[in-house]
Amino acid sequence: MTERRLNIVVWNEYVHERGTGVPADLYPDGIHGAIADGLRASLGTAAVVSTATLDEPEHGLPAAVLDHVDVLVWWGHVAHDAVSDELAARVQQRVLDGMGLVVLHSAHYSKPFRLLMGTSCGLRWREADDRELIWTVNPGHPIAAGVPAVIPLARHEMYGEFFDIPAPDELVFISSFTGGEVFRSGCCFHRGKGKVFYFSPGHETYPIYHDAMIRQVIGNAVGWACAGESSGTQTGIHESPNGWFEQ
Amino acid sequence: MTERRLNIVVWNEYVHERGTGVPADLYPDGIHGAIADGLRASLGTAAVVSTATLDEPEHGLPAAVLDHVDVLVWWGHVAHDAVSDELAARVQQRVLDGMGLVVLHSAHYSKPFRLLMGTSCGLRWREADDRELIWTVNPGHPIAAGVPAVIPLARHEMYGEFFDIPAPDELVFISSFTGGEVFRSGCCFHRGKGKVFYFSPGHETYPIYHDAMIRQVIGNAVGWACAGESSGTQTGIHESPNGWFEQ
Amino acid sequence: MTERRLNIVVWNEYVHERGTGVPADLYPDGIHGAIADGLRASLGTAAVVSTATLDEPEHGLPAAVLDHVDVLVWWGHVAHDAVSDELAARVQQRVLDGMGLVVLHSAHYSKPFRLLMGTSCGLRWREADDRELIWTVNPGHPIAAGVPAVIPLARHEMYGEFFDIPAPDELVFISSFTGGEVFRSGCCFHRGKGKVFYFSPGHETYPIYHDAMIRQVIGNAVGWACAGESSGTQTGIHESPNGWFEQ
Amino acid sequence: MTERRLNIVVWNEYVHERGTGVPADLYPDGIHGAIADGLRASLGTAAVVSTATLDEPEHGLPAAVLDHVDVLVWWGHVAHDAVSDELAARVQQRVLDGMGLVVLHSAHYSKPFRLLMGTSCGLRWREADDRELIWTVNPGHPIAAGVPAVIPLARHEMYGEFFDIPAPDELVFISSFTGGEVFRSGCCFHRGKGKVFYFSPGHETYPIYHDAMIRQVIGNAVGWACAGESSGTQTGIHESPNGWFEQ
Repeated sequence: MTERRLNIVVWNEYVHERGTGVPADLYPDGIHGAIADGLRASLGTAAVVSTATLDEPEHGLPAAVLDHVDVLVWWGHVAHDAVSDELAARVQQRVLDGMGLVVLHSAHYSKPFRLLMGTSCGLRWREADDRELIWTVNPGHPIAAGVPAVIPLARHEMYGEFFDIPAPDELVFISSFTGGEVFRSGCCFHRGKGKVFYFSPGHETYPIYHDAMIRQVIGNAVGWACAGESSGTQTGIHESPNGWFEQ
Repeated sequence: MTERRLNIVVWNEYVHERGTGVPADLYPDGIHGAIADGLRASLGTAAVVSTATLDEPEHGLPAAVLDHVDVLVWWGHVAHDAVSDELAARVQQRVLDGMGLVVLHSAHYSKPFRLLMGTSCGLRWREADDRELIWTVNPGHPIAAGVPAVIPLARHEMYGEFFDIPAPDELVFISSFTGGEVFRSGCCFHRGKGKVFYFSPGHETYPIYHDAMIRQVIGNAVGWACAGESSGTQTGIHESPNGWFEQ
Repeated sequence: MTERRLNIVVWNEYVHERGTGVPADLYPDGIHGAIADGLRASLGTAAVVSTATLDEPEHGLPAAVLDHVDVLVWWGHVAHDAVSDELAARVQQRVLDGMGLVVLHSAHYSKPFRLLMGTSCGLRWREADDRELIWTVNPGHPIAAGVPAVIPLARHEMYGEFFDIPAPDELVFISSFTGGEVFRSGCCFHRGKGKVFYFSPGHETYPIYHDAMIRQVIGNAVGWACAGESSGTQTGIHESPNGWFEQ
Repeated sequence: MTERRLNIVVWNEYVHERGTGVPADLYPDGIHGAIADGLRASLGTAAVVSTATLDEPEHGLPAAVLDHVDVLVWWGHVAHDAVSDELAARVQQRVLDGMGLVVLHSAHYSKPFRLLMGTSCGLRWREADDRELIWTVNPGHPIAAGVPAVIPLARHEMYGEFFDIPAPDELVFISSFTGGEVFRSGCCFHRGKGKVFYFSPGHETYPIYHDAMIRQVIGNAVGWACAGESSGTQTGIHESPNGWFEQ
């Protein structure tokens, strides 16, 4: 018996890392490359991990591809508006149909995440090399598996409350910063048959996605977001049958 | 000292009741008229209750009006698509800024509700004169104040699960139907600084909005959704200030 | 490499089935026997499934046994008071430490469940051969995997709202009954590092635990409640260390 | 027409402030006295605010008194065990019946709170004059009315995650500390027909309950926790009627 391998795609706008400067130095293969490397190491043969970027045809996610993705990881920052409304709506629909979505850092303002949340997704921020401490507030959650009580990031951009999202269905991490701010940095949402995890670490000027514990969290999140067997057992949930149960 | 009176607007597409037939007979002043009557009776001098309809200029809700609404009640069915995307987005933004929104029956598919939920908002349905029983599952909730353990509706359209919404922040009512279906018929959501209550009773061919207990629930919901003093105490929550707490 | 097999225990007061009458006829090996059979069939070699009953020494759950249980399934009805307070507290503590607990039917009034909920856990009930329909309201949830949109039970005891529990962290099933009542029949709770699933089917005078779909749900619930790898990764969460993060 | 005035009782173990030392200097009338003063100022003629302490007969809360309390505020620290199990159970039952309960600081380990939560209620702590910043993460919540985005406390005891409570039904405040810890410092819970608010500020060696903003929060919390009209509209919710809806 062979099990189907999971189909994981890491999407990145891939803008910052193409110039010269810190992001390019930190991520010579792009942020997506670093994240995909981490996922391949943690998921092994259980998954096929590929990448897609903004400048590819249909942003690298034509329907024929997207329809077979189990979990999509999304990073974006300066080019949110360049993502087509059509793709954003298709990603939203795929989540409702059961696809997992892991939304990273500045993608809090990405089109798919905002469509799925229904709120502004605004937050406070400051680029000042704050130390960030990521505390687990849900130690039994699968996304916290193998994660210590606190993950320190020596330097990072500050993201602070109020974070204008619906109350998360499960809150896994809360961060603090040198400046005293707090942030709900690991948030789970269930939408339709799909799962969404927002995880705030990952500004492009810090080597966050090379951190072993951050990779552990993202690997856990992909595993959690994956519908596995439960996907597809109840089809047509968005239809409106007009009949009686007993007929 | 005089307190500011609340500003409540009942919006209705006002299509069914204009023809001849059952809806026109049941609601000679429109569904909005019946709902507004109920609200005037329950809220008394605490509120000014007015109405707005689809065919008015800017659907009766130009920015100058909408910006001063405390709670908006919304009924729509066959004309969802005729509502401008601009108004739908403005209603969504007003909720995030603190306005209350009470969404009734077939308005589960209205543009503002879908934007705020981020899901398909689909459900099962059947027009077959089912008896509906509305059970309170949250007896301490303000929307259940003065409401008996069960509200019976002799005949109504069936709405059934799966109802594709985010898990409600508070679940107040669950209904059953003659056919054995169940439905989360009273659901609270918090979005930004605003509150949303979805309440499923109110098909246009039944005299639901003349029912005393249904009026009690809608009156309670308007009171609950009203931000009151807390609105406006924290401004700029959607902005992204870039500074330190201590400076 | 050999994986550790899960350790599942089905606990039953085992009173009704020992007399003569319907329960004895339906469950010649006890309710626990039928549930354990179902779990063995669905979990296969991944788990060791055993049983324990009230009349055994220390109710079959001495600390040396309980400390190694991954998921405990609990059925009780007329003998709740015969369970020692000491065992009830130990079960509660084990859940906080990461053990899964699946609470069935009349065990809504069991000591461990009441301790974990903090509420009266009261409900309406009626023994009148109602038809029960169990609707999935969370089709992407792992406990709904492989389960149809509705599970019919031809005849069952009625359990109805208001069910005095904390709002479930995840609501998976809602039931309706011939009499028109509704009930939150499948409810998930997270407590400490452990998970609790309450599932209402299973009155002793009906062959509920021989039903294939009910067995599917219980098997799913055991899989969901099992902490797996995440158990034990953060020790000492109930301690109160008095030191600085950085020292 | 005269409205019934709310009946608010502030309960305190009243141990620390009776000796000589910082707590006695800060709170010459006891912690309960300071809290009651604040409530009288904010609630005015709408409420009668009284106090009760551990050393009074029946801890100052005989059934004849407790049965008429609308909201009970609770502070305790070193004498949790001196509170009778009978009173703790009676407080729990009163909450289920609709009474509000505001639990302050070290009362996270009080008997009534632990009974209502069902968890260990453990947390990290450190007495080291940390600066605490209390951030609002739910700006539309009535308990945040009139409260700024952040309340600073110049010096306070540190309380940190993991805080072993059920996920709050509504999360209003998150605190950070000089040491980088975070804490869910303002948490709402609904239990039965009653409401519980846990608010962490208030170590006995700091003048926290003289702070205007802390008083604002506690006043808001009392208003929120008060069932008002909705109390008593559905009686007998813990009973188990055995009849048909239609008979």
